[in-house]
Amino acid sequence: MASNLPTILLSSGEPAGIGPDICTMLIKEKIPARLAVLGDPQLLADRARALGLAFELHDRKMLAEVTPHKKGHLEVIGVSLRVPVQPGQLNPANAEYVLELLKRGTALCKISKQSALVTAPVQKSVINQAGINFTGHTEYLADLMEKRRPVMLLVAKNVRVALATTHLPLSKVAAAITRQSLKQVISTLRHGLQQQFGLKNPRILVLGLNPHAGEKGVLGNEEQQIIQPVIDELSGSGLHIQGPVSADTAFTPARLAECDVILAMYHDQGLPGIKALAFGDIVNVTLGLPIIRTSVDHGTALELASTGRAKADSLKQAVRLAIKIAADPESVCF
Amino acid sequence: MASNLPTILLSSGEPAGIGPDICTMLIKEKIPARLAVLGDPQLLADRARALGLAFELHDRKMLAEVTPHKKGHLEVIGVSLRVPVQPGQLNPANAEYVLELLKRGTALCKISKQSALVTAPVQKSVINQAGINFTGHTEYLADLMEKRRPVMLLVAKNVRVALATTHLPLSKVAAAITRQSLKQVISTLRHGLQQQFGLKNPRILVLGLNPHAGEKGVLGNEEQQIIQPVIDELSGSGLHIQGPVSADTAFTPARLAECDVILAMYHDQGLPGIKALAFGDIVNVTLGLPIIRTSVDHGTALELASTGRAKADSLKQAVRLAIKIAADPESVCF
Repeated sequence: MASNLPTILLSSGEPAGIGPDICTMLIKEKIPARLAVLGDPQLLADRARALGLAFELHDRKMLAEVTPHKKGHLEVIGVSLRVPVQPGQLNPANAEYVLELLKRGTALCKISKQSALVTAPVQKSVINQAGINFTGHTEYLADLMEKRRPVMLLVAKNVRVALATTHLPLSKVAAAITRQSLKQVISTLRHGLQQQFGLKNPRILVLGLNPHAGEKGVLGNEEQQIIQPVIDELSGSGLHIQGPVSADTAFTPARLAECDVILAMYHDQGLPGIKALAFGDIVNVTLGLPIIRTSVDHGTALELASTGRAKADSLKQAVRLAIKIAADPESVCF
Repeated sequence: MASNLPTILLSSGEPAGIGPDICTMLIKEKIPARLAVLGDPQLLADRARALGLAFELHDRKMLAEVTPHKKGHLEVIGVSLRVPVQPGQLNPANAEYVLELLKRGTALCKISKQSALVTAPVQKSVINQAGINFTGHTEYLADLMEKRRPVMLLVAKNVRVALATTHLPLSKVAAAITRQSLKQVISTLRHGLQQQFGLKNPRILVLGLNPHAGEKGVLGNEEQQIIQPVIDELSGSGLHIQGPVSADTAFTPARLAECDVILAMYHDQGLPGIKALAFGDIVNVTLGLPIIRTSVDHGTALELASTGRAKADSLKQAVRLAIKIAADPESVCF
């Protein structure tokens, strides 16, 4: 039985934030997986002590060494900080450290299909201050694995939201939505929901780009020129896909009951609605990668680092979903 | 007592939609106001009969003739349809009729401060098909009254959302946000919340334009160049204003507790969140006009016209709020 347990690697993220806190907090939990934290062993031990956690730390180097999770045991895949960290104090000198966590995690997860990378938050701005172009986990992981168009999917109990574009300045969104890009996103979304969530023919509800989905061309024509033709084509080929509908009423009970996923055209069109409904109970999943990756739905919360006031609820949800997907996607009803 | 009752004029909106239905349905309600419906008397009578409502119809011409509302009495300020209407069938030939309702309502409301215009939904596209440029009630009413920058405010029990831009194609939003436009919007918003909601110094939470409020310039620079300087300037002059914050977490309990209103930069950034939280219990208020105007939060629902399946709940809320504002803004805690 234990030999079939999936392996979950936790990338502990920005070292000055709450990532190391919430990762070490999982040693108090019962988790049906092999579990290891990617991070600086000293940092993780310091943070665990600051939080008053009793623990034994175990160094691991390879995926195969990670053992089934036991309370009080902190398994660590060590990556060294470049410079020491003060909780709450960002330092571009550790940007490479943060990215190394992701590189190591990705490389290890590629070894086994029954594994997943679960990421704690990073601070985009400090990575950019270090001279590294970084717009988000989703995009960085896709680049690492040479995948061109990952899909960011937010998953809560009664609502899923996917994004056609992710971390783009608003002024660049309209031009980024093309028939080709939209078809790629929908293909990745559909495939991902089939593979990772066991949905044979997911019902996709597509939002318009403009207010009121363009109101028949009065408020923009991308719906008529780009979105509607793509929906018509894919619908004609057997997909359960409808739209474009107005974003403002998409997150109401009647609409949500009609679909398995809402495809929003951009970040701030899709995320406020799902976070209004389910903040703290949302997991971020990246579709279109060769590995399974889930993430928390919150930021680095620098002011809470090392205080004991951070909550690991979102991380627990992300781990729980990663375990389900890695163990048996057919069973995922989250 | 009765002489102090405010006068509420209901613009019945698109004649093929549910506007005439929900306006006539109010004759079943107890409403502490003088109340009259703007619309074609025959259309309103037909619709009331189709819904099985018992009523007496009274023609009114002037604001002073409108009497305190009594159940079963339908007071109508008559405007004639241009062509007969089939429920559910849009016809551009009646576009001028729809606009005349708004013109008459506005002209009448200007006569008394203790009056308000409450609007049922219109169909933007059919007005445009008639060759008339019409992007929304908010903009049209502002044009009528020669006010340049009205503010659209959505009001629910525990959340209010104002928009810095309203019915613009997404590709035009970024360029429409300037320091000057933002200052005008905030001035109108603040003044409106003071005058109409009795909030002496409303706490305004401003959203960023870009994802994560630009993440310190990584995802766009309008926050640094436009929004932050405006907030700094206004905050320095004593306003309770903070931001720019990330839109995706703005509609969560902690954020909502910090403010009296969220100022979103555009339509689909602000509306999905409030409608996710309170759909059906939201009233749309236009600030910056010389009259009081509230509106339902739904569309024309053509397929429900004349069927008896439309619900007047949102209209009742809009009337209720209009009465409070017109009677005594100090008492408005909605």
